[in-house]
Amino acid sequence: MTSPIEAVRWSPDASAVRIIDQRRLPEHYVERDLRTLDEVVEAIQTLSVRGAPAIGVCGAMGLAVAAEAGTSASPSFHADLRRIALAIREARPTAVNLAWAVDRVMALVDAAADRDTVLAVLRREATRILDEDRAMCRAIGEHGSALIADGARVLTHCNAGALATGGMGTALAPVYVAHGRGLRVAVFADETRPLLQGSRLTAWELARAGVPVTVISDNMAASVMRSGHVDLCIVGADRIAANGDVANKIGTYGVAVLARHHGIPFYVAAPTSTIDPATATGADIVIEQRAAEEVAVPFGVRIAPVDASIHNPAFDVTPAELVTAIVTDTGIFRGPYRFT
Amino acid sequence: MTSPIEAVRWSPDASAVRIIDQRRLPEHYVERDLRTLDEVVEAIQTLSVRGAPAIGVCGAMGLAVAAEAGTSASPSFHADLRRIALAIREARPTAVNLAWAVDRVMALVDAAADRDTVLAVLRREATRILDEDRAMCRAIGEHGSALIADGARVLTHCNAGALATGGMGTALAPVYVAHGRGLRVAVFADETRPLLQGSRLTAWELARAGVPVTVISDNMAASVMRSGHVDLCIVGADRIAANGDVANKIGTYGVAVLARHHGIPFYVAAPTSTIDPATATGADIVIEQRAAEEVAVPFGVRIAPVDASIHNPAFDVTPAELVTAIVTDTGIFRGPYRFT
Repeated sequence: MTSPIEAVRWSPDASAVRIIDQRRLPEHYVERDLRTLDEVVEAIQTLSVRGAPAIGVCGAMGLAVAAEAGTSASPSFHADLRRIALAIREARPTAVNLAWAVDRVMALVDAAADRDTVLAVLRREATRILDEDRAMCRAIGEHGSALIADGARVLTHCNAGALATGGMGTALAPVYVAHGRGLRVAVFADETRPLLQGSRLTAWELARAGVPVTVISDNMAASVMRSGHVDLCIVGADRIAANGDVANKIGTYGVAVLARHHGIPFYVAAPTSTIDPATATGADIVIEQRAAEEVAVPFGVRIAPVDASIHNPAFDVTPAELVTAIVTDTGIFRGPYRFT
Repeated sequence: MTSPIEAVRWSPDASAVRIIDQRRLPEHYVERDLRTLDEVVEAIQTLSVRGAPAIGVCGAMGLAVAAEAGTSASPSFHADLRRIALAIREARPTAVNLAWAVDRVMALVDAAADRDTVLAVLRREATRILDEDRAMCRAIGEHGSALIADGARVLTHCNAGALATGGMGTALAPVYVAHGRGLRVAVFADETRPLLQGSRLTAWELARAGVPVTVISDNMAASVMRSGHVDLCIVGADRIAANGDVANKIGTYGVAVLARHHGIPFYVAAPTSTIDPATATGADIVIEQRAAEEVAVPFGVRIAPVDASIHNPAFDVTPAELVTAIVTDTGIFRGPYRFT
């Protein structure tokens, strides 16, 4: 079972990081090869590559190619390398996986080693991070596929799919594994305002993989559930607290409440690295407020008056009691959750 | 207590129907004067004027001015009038209020009467329909204002405001009455995908009236409720069944489920004419499916892949057990509902 698409991978001659430019989807499928520091940073900053796992993978691989392109065997090599690593690490300061991946690679660099040796280390470790991410996705998919019966209709929110990872995704991995085994599985994709990752990305990658997908506006989920068209919900997670509270894309909590009301199981799928035992409960998670223009001026068209306030939280918190189970790469957890 | 804006009214010299062009909101406030049949039909068909009550009022008033502009005192006058009435009546075939208003006016036309007499009848009855609509809104506002305490935070969905009626609206009328009495009342407006009547229209008219309003994407309502920022919900209705089930803009049902989960009262405000005793329950209401492009291609930008399905129901049905009370022009009804 391979991933239907590969959002981040080596180019055929391994001289570049090849990404799918997610800004162009769903209208245009465009691949980009990143070879220089500027190209790597720009791709991360402009959301050409997005999704925490994918950004981490891209950062590590990008460091390897940018170091090859941007350094020479001079006395300043190690200083130049650190400058490049720092620039990539800070391309998106709030993306934990990016800092984690760059730090992991740089921790292996021997300050006394020569350039060729260091470049080989960078490349090897970046490849390892990519491979681990793929394996993590596959493991989530294998575990989660046990929850999907033949004929299942799955509702998902935002994009926690192949486009968000180096592999087959997190929330969508069980769908891909079930589909790959010949089970009939269909998906409702919430469009996920304001940035529409559901309609733009989730629907695109599912359709490309041959999985039947229906896009709905977020406010249609309730009536679709009431009509009996949804058997289970699967969403991703940005952070999972020790008690099982889940921070994820804004709107996730509403889906969980609706699922509970209609007696539909609500699953969260995420790597174990998303579980943060240091966060006791969801109340400890600070919710980022994003720019008003994302809601008020989509596609450059003003849809709200200038004298109205705008509320634009990036995430919400779903309390653990609404989460039927948490699907990870190491297995399925059911409440009460006590992660340590 | 007057309406903060007048979506449909006579021009100062009464030679035209003056409307606010709702296609231009929220960016531009543009009034249009409708004098001819073509102008009236075009305004209704292009949604320059929208909202079932407002369309009915505009149809009756439009018939009066179009008959003045488009007929002469010839033997064909009555035939010409019937042609004009039919064209307006069919401008939007599914808008019940439009047919109702045109039929009501035409029923008063004496086929033996001369042109001047008939024109006077048309104008007088159209004015009566406008005045009745204003009074209906005001009565809903008076009754509903009893539900709004000083400092209340109200969540609403879609636009059932002044822009949808000849008066101060239905769902928003209690807000305007409370605000007019000096109570502090603030509103969260769901943007209401796909056509965004909440952000485009509700937020605009509330802000113009000086009522504090915050626009949210539909999927943010759950977290706003969970944060304790909503005291009550008020929405409009397209049809109310004999048992109290309510058909209204898609997304209304989800708001009702979320309100119940959070212990927040959920009110429906509508004229008694919206109650249809011939419809036993919500299950008898056929839900119109609208064009996929409304969801997939907003503002001409494609946001969903061409090979994804699109689900775009115009309405959903909220079961009566989730409706705390129904506010009408004749008073407040509480369940169990048995309308006859």
